[in-house]
Amino acid sequence: MLDKFKDECGVFGIFGHPEAANLTYLGLYALQHRGQESAGICTADGEKMRISRAMGQVADAFDERALDALPGHIAIGHTRYSTTGESRLLNAQPILIDCAHGQIAIAHNGNLVNASELRQRLVRDGSIFQTSSDTEVVLHLYARSREHTVEDALIESIAQITGAFSFALLTKDRLIAARDPHGFRPLALGKLDGAYIVTSETCALDLIGATYIRDVEPGEVLIISDGGMRSLHPFPPAPLAHCIFEHVYFARPDSYVFGRSVNDVRTQLGRILAEESRVDADVVSPIPDSGVCGATGFAEKSGIPMAMGLIRNHYVGRTFIQPQQAIRHLSVRIKLNPVRSVLEGRRVILVDDSIVRGTTSRKIVKMVRAAGAKEVQRPTRWRT
Amino acid sequence: MLDKFKDECGVFGIFGHPEAANLTYLGLYALQHRGQESAGICTADGEKMRISRAMGQVADAFDERALDALPGHIAIGHTRYSTTGESRLLNAQPILIDCAHGQIAIAHNGNLVNASELRQRLVRDGSIFQTSSDTEVVLHLYARSREHTVEDALIESIAQITGAFSFALLTKDRLIAARDPHGFRPLALGKLDGAYIVTSETCALDLIGATYIRDVEPGEVLIISDGGMRSLHPFPPAPLAHCIFEHVYFARPDSYVFGRSVNDVRTQLGRILAEESRVDADVVSPIPDSGVCGATGFAEKSGIPMAMGLIRNHYVGRTFIQPQQAIRHLSVRIKLNPVRSVLEGRRVILVDDSIVRGTTSRKIVKMVRAAGAKEVQRPTRWRT
Amino acid sequence: MLDKFKDECGVFGIFGHPEAANLTYLGLYALQHRGQESAGICTADGEKMRISRAMGQVADAFDERALDALPGHIAIGHTRYSTTGESRLLNAQPILIDCAHGQIAIAHNGNLVNASELRQRLVRDGSIFQTSSDTEVVLHLYARSREHTVEDALIESIAQITGAFSFALLTKDRLIAARDPHGFRPLALGKLDGAYIVTSETCALDLIGATYIRDVEPGEVLIISDGGMRSLHPFPPAPLAHCIFEHVYFARPDSYVFGRSVNDVRTQLGRILAEESRVDADVVSPIPDSGVCGATGFAEKSGIPMAMGLIRNHYVGRTFIQPQQAIRHLSVRIKLNPVRSVLEGRRVILVDDSIVRGTTSRKIVKMVRAAGAKEVQRPTRWRT
Amino acid sequence: MLDKFKDECGVFGIFGHPEAANLTYLGLYALQHRGQESAGICTADGEKMRISRAMGQVADAFDERALDALPGHIAIGHTRYSTTGESRLLNAQPILIDCAHGQIAIAHNGNLVNASELRQRLVRDGSIFQTSSDTEVVLHLYARSREHTVEDALIESIAQITGAFSFALLTKDRLIAARDPHGFRPLALGKLDGAYIVTSETCALDLIGATYIRDVEPGEVLIISDGGMRSLHPFPPAPLAHCIFEHVYFARPDSYVFGRSVNDVRTQLGRILAEESRVDADVVSPIPDSGVCGATGFAEKSGIPMAMGLIRNHYVGRTFIQPQQAIRHLSVRIKLNPVRSVLEGRRVILVDDSIVRGTTSRKIVKMVRAAGAKEVQRPTRWRT
Repeated sequence: MLDKFKDECGVFGIFGHPEAANLTYLGLYALQHRGQESAGICTADGEKMRISRAMGQVADAFDERALDALPGHIAIGHTRYSTTGESRLLNAQPILIDCAHGQIAIAHNGNLVNASELRQRLVRDGSIFQTSSDTEVVLHLYARSREHTVEDALIESIAQITGAFSFALLTKDRLIAARDPHGFRPLALGKLDGAYIVTSETCALDLIGATYIRDVEPGEVLIISDGGMRSLHPFPPAPLAHCIFEHVYFARPDSYVFGRSVNDVRTQLGRILAEESRVDADVVSPIPDSGVCGATGFAEKSGIPMAMGLIRNHYVGRTFIQPQQAIRHLSVRIKLNPVRSVLEGRRVILVDDSIVRGTTSRKIVKMVRAAGAKEVQRPTRWRT
Repeated sequence: MLDKFKDECGVFGIFGHPEAANLTYLGLYALQHRGQESAGICTADGEKMRISRAMGQVADAFDERALDALPGHIAIGHTRYSTTGESRLLNAQPILIDCAHGQIAIAHNGNLVNASELRQRLVRDGSIFQTSSDTEVVLHLYARSREHTVEDALIESIAQITGAFSFALLTKDRLIAARDPHGFRPLALGKLDGAYIVTSETCALDLIGATYIRDVEPGEVLIISDGGMRSLHPFPPAPLAHCIFEHVYFARPDSYVFGRSVNDVRTQLGRILAEESRVDADVVSPIPDSGVCGATGFAEKSGIPMAMGLIRNHYVGRTFIQPQQAIRHLSVRIKLNPVRSVLEGRRVILVDDSIVRGTTSRKIVKMVRAAGAKEVQRPTRWRT
Repeated sequence: MLDKFKDECGVFGIFGHPEAANLTYLGLYALQHRGQESAGICTADGEKMRISRAMGQVADAFDERALDALPGHIAIGHTRYSTTGESRLLNAQPILIDCAHGQIAIAHNGNLVNASELRQRLVRDGSIFQTSSDTEVVLHLYARSREHTVEDALIESIAQITGAFSFALLTKDRLIAARDPHGFRPLALGKLDGAYIVTSETCALDLIGATYIRDVEPGEVLIISDGGMRSLHPFPPAPLAHCIFEHVYFARPDSYVFGRSVNDVRTQLGRILAEESRVDADVVSPIPDSGVCGATGFAEKSGIPMAMGLIRNHYVGRTFIQPQQAIRHLSVRIKLNPVRSVLEGRRVILVDDSIVRGTTSRKIVKMVRAAGAKEVQRPTRWRT
Repeated sequence: MLDKFKDECGVFGIFGHPEAANLTYLGLYALQHRGQESAGICTADGEKMRISRAMGQVADAFDERALDALPGHIAIGHTRYSTTGESRLLNAQPILIDCAHGQIAIAHNGNLVNASELRQRLVRDGSIFQTSSDTEVVLHLYARSREHTVEDALIESIAQITGAFSFALLTKDRLIAARDPHGFRPLALGKLDGAYIVTSETCALDLIGATYIRDVEPGEVLIISDGGMRSLHPFPPAPLAHCIFEHVYFARPDSYVFGRSVNDVRTQLGRILAEESRVDADVVSPIPDSGVCGATGFAEKSGIPMAMGLIRNHYVGRTFIQPQQAIRHLSVRIKLNPVRSVLEGRRVILVDDSIVRGTTSRKIVKMVRAAGAKEVQRPTRWRT
């Protein structure tokens, strides 16, 4: 899908590993598709906390010196898509602050619906905000909490927010994970040797060789310290409400999200589509890369052979200089090129993961026709 | 294929378009897969020549200001893989020099077999070389030629070299294209409105909306000027010798190379493989991205369903920081992750475009087994 | 003087000029000697406030685009020496915040003695600090003030701090200047056409062609708005306590500080020194550049001719790579080189502005002796 | 002097020291005033040669890693002012080439008068030039020489050029120094322990603790190798023609140039001026820094006291952003500020080292008058 929502972020946390920063770096690498705007890692060694954040992708944001400057056996990390707040380093996460309860860092995937209301109240009472992001309100609530323990202050703070959140929080000696009662965003729990890991998607567990245990449950708060892992359910229960886009296009196909294989869900959607919309055609072509699972399912169910009728350019960069003279379909063609030998004279079924506004799809269809396709079918009932 | 040969480069030239530099930029963008080390564009407006080169990919090498500083209706461009010569800016192409015959720029894809012999002779006669690349000898031969015209001097120079070459050359008012008599490397000729284009692969024609006319023939020299296009065949004929790796993995599947669709050649190789090596299995999985065409052909012929058993990480960067603790299969896993739900309990056929040393393949097979595959087949007879 | 105190900063403010940012840039340029660690400018146009800060010197911190992005007729600027707080961009000034009273920016020269005590109290009450600098406490006091006007809230906040301060503060439509009741640090008031200016030293007025009016008085708060300039004296009076180092080496000799010409003060100190310490010698040489005024006065009074026996290298940069082999006096010699023809066989009097630990002075004396000086006198009674 | 000629460069060479690159770095540091456009060092260890060059000042051009990558006991270095050729890295020196006689590097201070004529001839014969600088012709003559030894080839090449040159040349095992028969530009010979040094000015010897031996003589070629130092005089003698600007403003006052102390020459010029132009005044002020020696001599001879009536801003950078509104004398004032307390009501004599077009001088005089000077005298007969 080319007209993307920008609603995702990658969150990772680890407790109890001598190479916490290195493994968080690898974890963020695996979660890179959930946010390329900025990346950050914060570590703790029981005494001191350290942070490093930079604009851009994980591989650019950290070099060996940066990782060496992040000792400690506990870490959290974040890759960011700008859901709220401007695109600048100050808004990169984790956010690390010092307050009356000591130092705390936060990494957040989600959107808070009562953030601006809480912010106004906090400013009225004399708080000074550093960022324009949702996430900072949680920290101010925490800084102002009169509760006596880190745990109580944190639960009191989280209880005041509503919306979608999967948090990884770090203090000097604790990793805390929390997921909103609706379970909007995913958060999985894994283990590597003795270390606990939380991550937005299981592909990060695969990369570092960790084992998936279970999902952090909706409404659950996990507190992981030298004393082990404790699970709390301090919030009133709420109806489950998983975000469908996690399965459809946020997550990587090799991840398990909300307990199910993303590849299976997408392939199954392709099969259902083939059943619901019986069209005759010569070839099924995915719109790469996101449409490949669906196209595989569609081809399998319909018996129509699959072929790569479109090639994706893997070198597409952010900045792209347009010639002044109009070139037909350039904006699409720079990312995708039709394979004439697959399309020419054929009746083609194109399968994508999802369609938002449909403007890009229309351009792709035109381009595929211009490459010689006799008919182009977009299976109906894909979205209702 | 992960253990790559480094034998390719991308060459592009255009004559007769007011946006010559912009279209060359787009052409190099489409040829990016043929070389990511450096990129360069040289333009001419009939009077003056201008050049801009930088290390890195096309999108990083040029911004709007750089392209605005390259006026003219003639241009050549180059994306480089270091075939010979160290990796540094001085070796980036095009190479532009001034000599007794005026200014000339050259962009080269190929390897000259008598380069070091010619270089020694030229140095003995007092020539000073700037680069450690093969290509510069052509320029020194040209600078020393006693012929009176650009054309004669150039043909005299090229006649002295042996090996693989597809050249795009630029003088202040001419675009010259030349291909070695064996036809080792590809070079296609296209047209856009009144402008002539030469390019290593036809995918560059597709991107800018140009039409493919024919290949520059082995041993042909094309001279394109205000007076039109002239074709010369000044060299003795030689037996045809296309490089098989162009079809197997250098070129993009959507290109036509040596007159044939790369996608068709690869898909057909997959079909032949399925016939030659009859193995029973539950699923055919490509090693993405290069194995997709072959896997499609294999699945089609064998009747075994294809599925994406491996996911490629599209954010793989150059520098990657290794944790000190060993993580199994990390070097491979950072690029490819197995999709457990596709592989678990299945007999799997893995298809790649080609195998050089096989070390990576072995790691992939182990990783696929670790993800639960019951059997892993690499079809035999793939390479002999 | 080479072993410097690090106790200075440059502060500049302007109200009522269409080129407020450009003139602040020039003002900071003139105040560069008061701090080279970072520089910043914040502007206001009556509605919006904008800020730009960078590490390094003024000329590096701002280019034309940066200044163009700072519209408005009111501005404050700052050049920083790290008095308190680590050397990093977050600690650069001005500091701009948003709070219940609206946006406010601050630029500060001085040291607050009750800052850490105030900070502890504020943190206990739930404030989150962004920087490790003294200055931020003023902003938190302001953000929490229950007073209803900007003016009252500001005065209430400043009244709580003790120590040395010359402030320039900026709101969206006001420039506020304040100086502590002791008058530790300088702050001069000037005028250019209709615009008001405040600056740490008068050399900034000279550069932009403004006229010196008077000093901001110890304990005075100036509020400059569209309604004109108002002067308040809201704090209880305190005994005057000018910092002697402002005259001796912080300030530029062409500035007037605390109402007196720095050049005159230093020259007069040289004359007094000549009277107090009658030594016979052949030549008086300053240690450049800071010792020139004093040496001039000494030479004038003593009748001993002055000559430049030491040359200062004007290209001394921050990083300097030492050879492994010891070179005598290298650390000093890299900055100063003796002029053998002036020193050889002579009895030399060396005059510097001040001496802190004397380690550098001892090295200079040795180097001057090694260059052939027969005797080296450091006049006594220079500091007691 | 503010309207500078751009006719100088700094040249340094050392043979026989384990820290050749480090000492060359220091030497260039001391010669920084002779060229800030680019800096370079080339070393040899008897077998291999290595080079590092960068735009900008010495301290920016080299870091520890760059110097560590330059092993060897022989080195030459260069700081460049663009005398001929554009300002770009390709024109930075030393220039290192490989040719039939082996590798050779050159560092040049001076201007060749027959360079373009030689260049034309060489291009006609098939040479390809890399740079637009004078200096490269020497290398092409050398590359084409049919002489059998490095020495003979080099002397044959140098014999063909006419003009001003002080060369330091480096082969894999030799340091060669050469000075033109007229002796236009300086070149001094020094010693440090067993190592030989050549340098444009003696201040570089002072910095590294080396001893001045003598000047390289006009027309002399010094060849320094493991076999010791040999002196040749292979060129026909020519009348001596030292460049007066070396004494007047190129060189540092602490250097000896053409055998005389620059400080002494300038001070003596000040004394002569005082004798020739008897004017009555209250104060003599140098235009810093270049006018200080002359002013000292003038004050001494005339009996009029010297004072610093102008202060130079030591933070003047290359880029300086002008406000749109005119500020009087800004271009001068940004570098120099009048000291009102010295100038007000006085008759002032201003002394500079030299005047080229006089435009800057006129601005300075106006600025000094605006600061309250009653009369401003520029002593006559300064230049004829």
